[in-house]
Amino acid sequence: MSTGKSATPSASAQSLRRAMSGLAGPLSSGEGTVPDFAAAPRPAAGEEPSVLILGAGVGGLTAAYELGRLGYRCTVLEPQPRTGGRNRTARKGDKLYELDGEGDRPVLTHTCAFDKGLYLNLGPGRIPYHHRRVLKYCADLGVSLEPYIMETTANVLHRAGHTPPGRPWRNRRIANDTRGHLAALLSATLTGNDEYTGLLRDLLRKFGDLDEEGEYHGSTRAGYAEPLDVHEFPQPADPLSLTDLVASEFWKHRFYQPVDYLWQATMFQPVGGMDKIVHALTERITSKYEVTVELEAEALSVDLTGEGVTVTYRAGGRELTATADYCVSNIPFPVLQQLTLTGFSQAFENAVGAVEYAPTCKVGWQANRRFWEDDHHQIYGGISWTDHPITQFWYPSNDYFSRTGTLTGAYNFGEHAEKMGKLAPADRLSLARDGAAQLHQEFLERTTVPDELGVTIAWHKVPHQLGGWADWDPSDEGHRVAYKQLLEPEGDGRFYVVGDQASPLPGWQEGAMMSAQYVVAQILGLLPRTAPETVQVPDAAFLTQGL
Amino acid sequence: MSTGKSATPSASAQSLRRAMSGLAGPLSSGEGTVPDFAAAPRPAAGEEPSVLILGAGVGGLTAAYELGRLGYRCTVLEPQPRTGGRNRTARKGDKLYELDGEGDRPVLTHTCAFDKGLYLNLGPGRIPYHHRRVLKYCADLGVSLEPYIMETTANVLHRAGHTPPGRPWRNRRIANDTRGHLAALLSATLTGNDEYTGLLRDLLRKFGDLDEEGEYHGSTRAGYAEPLDVHEFPQPADPLSLTDLVASEFWKHRFYQPVDYLWQATMFQPVGGMDKIVHALTERITSKYEVTVELEAEALSVDLTGEGVTVTYRAGGRELTATADYCVSNIPFPVLQQLTLTGFSQAFENAVGAVEYAPTCKVGWQANRRFWEDDHHQIYGGISWTDHPITQFWYPSNDYFSRTGTLTGAYNFGEHAEKMGKLAPADRLSLARDGAAQLHQEFLERTTVPDELGVTIAWHKVPHQLGGWADWDPSDEGHRVAYKQLLEPEGDGRFYVVGDQASPLPGWQEGAMMSAQYVVAQILGLLPRTAPETVQVPDAAFLTQGL
Repeated sequence: MSTGKSATPSASAQSLRRAMSGLAGPLSSGEGTVPDFAAAPRPAAGEEPSVLILGAGVGGLTAAYELGRLGYRCTVLEPQPRTGGRNRTARKGDKLYELDGEGDRPVLTHTCAFDKGLYLNLGPGRIPYHHRRVLKYCADLGVSLEPYIMETTANVLHRAGHTPPGRPWRNRRIANDTRGHLAALLSATLTGNDEYTGLLRDLLRKFGDLDEEGEYHGSTRAGYAEPLDVHEFPQPADPLSLTDLVASEFWKHRFYQPVDYLWQATMFQPVGGMDKIVHALTERITSKYEVTVELEAEALSVDLTGEGVTVTYRAGGRELTATADYCVSNIPFPVLQQLTLTGFSQAFENAVGAVEYAPTCKVGWQANRRFWEDDHHQIYGGISWTDHPITQFWYPSNDYFSRTGTLTGAYNFGEHAEKMGKLAPADRLSLARDGAAQLHQEFLERTTVPDELGVTIAWHKVPHQLGGWADWDPSDEGHRVAYKQLLEPEGDGRFYVVGDQASPLPGWQEGAMMSAQYVVAQILGLLPRTAPETVQVPDAAFLTQGL
Repeated sequence: MSTGKSATPSASAQSLRRAMSGLAGPLSSGEGTVPDFAAAPRPAAGEEPSVLILGAGVGGLTAAYELGRLGYRCTVLEPQPRTGGRNRTARKGDKLYELDGEGDRPVLTHTCAFDKGLYLNLGPGRIPYHHRRVLKYCADLGVSLEPYIMETTANVLHRAGHTPPGRPWRNRRIANDTRGHLAALLSATLTGNDEYTGLLRDLLRKFGDLDEEGEYHGSTRAGYAEPLDVHEFPQPADPLSLTDLVASEFWKHRFYQPVDYLWQATMFQPVGGMDKIVHALTERITSKYEVTVELEAEALSVDLTGEGVTVTYRAGGRELTATADYCVSNIPFPVLQQLTLTGFSQAFENAVGAVEYAPTCKVGWQANRRFWEDDHHQIYGGISWTDHPITQFWYPSNDYFSRTGTLTGAYNFGEHAEKMGKLAPADRLSLARDGAAQLHQEFLERTTVPDELGVTIAWHKVPHQLGGWADWDPSDEGHRVAYKQLLEPEGDGRFYVVGDQASPLPGWQEGAMMSAQYVVAQILGLLPRTAPETVQVPDAAFLTQGL
């Protein structure tokens, strides 16, 4: 076997390459263009190359979709009994496994007991509007999307010692009182009487809702002091003082995360759960193309020394062998490192071993009453923030005004995730309940939020995953070498890695799809198989820092 | 007849009054509580009072709902062939009438030609999360709601002479480059080395995305310079300079409106059109309660000199008379002023004549292609702003990713609305197309946005409406006297006015419902029929100012 079977670069290569490297539209800054492989050259009939895809995560499934569409014969080997990888949505009856204390044996930790119809996304939970690949695949596959609300001004922030338990600060107060105070401070420094300074003063008045003198005395942007009535008019409440705001260090608890491009409105989520994407991909590739998905088939070794690529895997209690022209690995690097790799370069093996996956936990709750939407809270979606180990608390962006709902009761990183992951599931839920009660006293009522309706996952302990995302760090010299290496195939263009792990967007499905498209274009010969001379290193810190 | 038929104040009055004046929850600032009349005393069987309700706007329908629910026998007289008043949604075949040049004869201006299934809200278009009454009635009535997206960072702003036609600035650039520059300016003034100043500097770094030196050199919050690829990393574009931002005076074109409490996330809209609220109210009151709605029944006079209230009205070409124990007028004040009022106090008649309704126009378009959602624009809901007379441009917050959609191509006030209202519908659409093309060149393609699929309304020329909302102005001494007067019934508690016009929220359905509840409580004897000694005056300026 040689790579000669792949289509040779053609006139369309340049246009595709241009599309893949992106065209800045006339509005500039960030308009993406998504390559369309439909115009790519197809292999001759009867000579369709075969591809083994290891792992049915979003990256693997996307590769199978694009290659399958062009007639490539694909087999996807997936060790788990479902496709999707970290794109997982918990529903009634779903079993959650984690590795035991020794880290080598999967143990059933608990089974999701949500009411039928309820669900919680355990992995990715939102799609930015500029993640054009995800949106395009959803359109192609008929996956219905609805807005994911990242921030509402009714959301709250709790910080121990600064906001009393059950009396956190509203987002609208923190955000707008801070704006007002900062604008007033700056306005006070402006001394000029020229036109420019006059306009700048006017801008600051609007920016911070300052009075004519450029002072801030509170704003109805922070909410009304009292509910309105025909003779009760909008009045600003006393503002939080800048001293209190600064002392609270609220900005260290992800408060400004929604300002970041990745979380700006309008975000989306699939109606019914994030795994609708995975189900639609799986259904499409297996029903329409020459693609087979083998579940509970765990890859053990990859051998590049022979003709094509040979993979051994365990399925149905037996060890089996498969050979193909190409192999695309969607296996997380820390897991891939545990496979027996033969015929790979030392540089590649080093690269696979260079990057760890980040620890991260989620907790989910079913609530039997949507108390957060009542007159007292008025919260419809968005996230509340806290310095408690749960870190953040999500409200559902779906089925508003219904009776019940699910909440993301923790989503943490680093040390908090490490510690929480070491706890037994019941203890994680107990910790998460403590944190939630700082935000909402309703969490003290076990009839409203019963213990048995909690779910929890420590992704760094999940078999075949071992973490939330590749923890790339540009300051790590080993990472610098590794990322470039991983963008180039091994074995004379026969073995490729895909996934958000091999993209500038670790932790995002867009990264997984981008990576899959890149590798598909390399396989098709539409892109060079060598990475550009200088490549940056992804920076996973944006996912975990206080922002 | 005397008002003795109404229930006498009881022990529940105090609790209702407390509810109506609002209880600040422990989170304080703005949590509303909505009165529930279900616990109110019901009239004795066979002695149910009768009520004539003039006008089937949201205020009139709400009064009919609450009184009907308690057994009151209500007749709603509505001059138009539909209920809802300014809550109107345009669909295929809907006829739009305006008064002719002389202002005295309704003329059919055009008929909506949207494709079946498309619609556009001509009046109210969104519901704030703290408008608890609207949300509660929607829940009671089974009206499905979905998020209304007020702002996305992909929205744009055009200002002639500052942004070239078709190349407006993105919201994310204006918002975040401004934040960055302002934060850097302030940071540069901080000289202290104490802990507080250190924290303040850190806050500014996060607030504005400044570098370690407290300087701003652009941020990916404003978008990426280039679309991402596996070897194309997030890079901030060159920021808009503060000089350019200040010179554009962008903040004078409503850019910061979404920061205002009334427009903060999460807003809602009824699935399928705002008039779903009206249809549900109408259906409920006529099917479940002793309420009759007579359409095309135009009130001509109200007489308080006899027993009860006598109203003459025109219906089916005849002049008819009706008498009832109470009368609730939902007629806009400028229209009510034209009725023959007998037995009213001079103070009341003066009050009715004191306030004008504000001019306002809307333009709507069907687009045969949702070009604004494509890779180039990436806009999903929200509003773009412009200094062109169209003032603003709304994208649909529903049916994302579908083929076609409707856009609000103008929503203006004051002089712009006056001038636009004077144009023939075809000329309004032509003007609106010019404005839209400054934002989106696609408006030059008549196949994408055909002339014949435009709709337009000048609310100040609509029969029985005469404007968008009561143009209350606290600086007008006549308004000060008038508002208080209008909160008190005429004719020994027999005649009441309702509507957003008699609330601190002119132009909002919440105001209409609040007013209706206030009057119902007065009729029930649960609230005093005299207004409080000092009452503020509503301020409609917030609706029309540049914010």
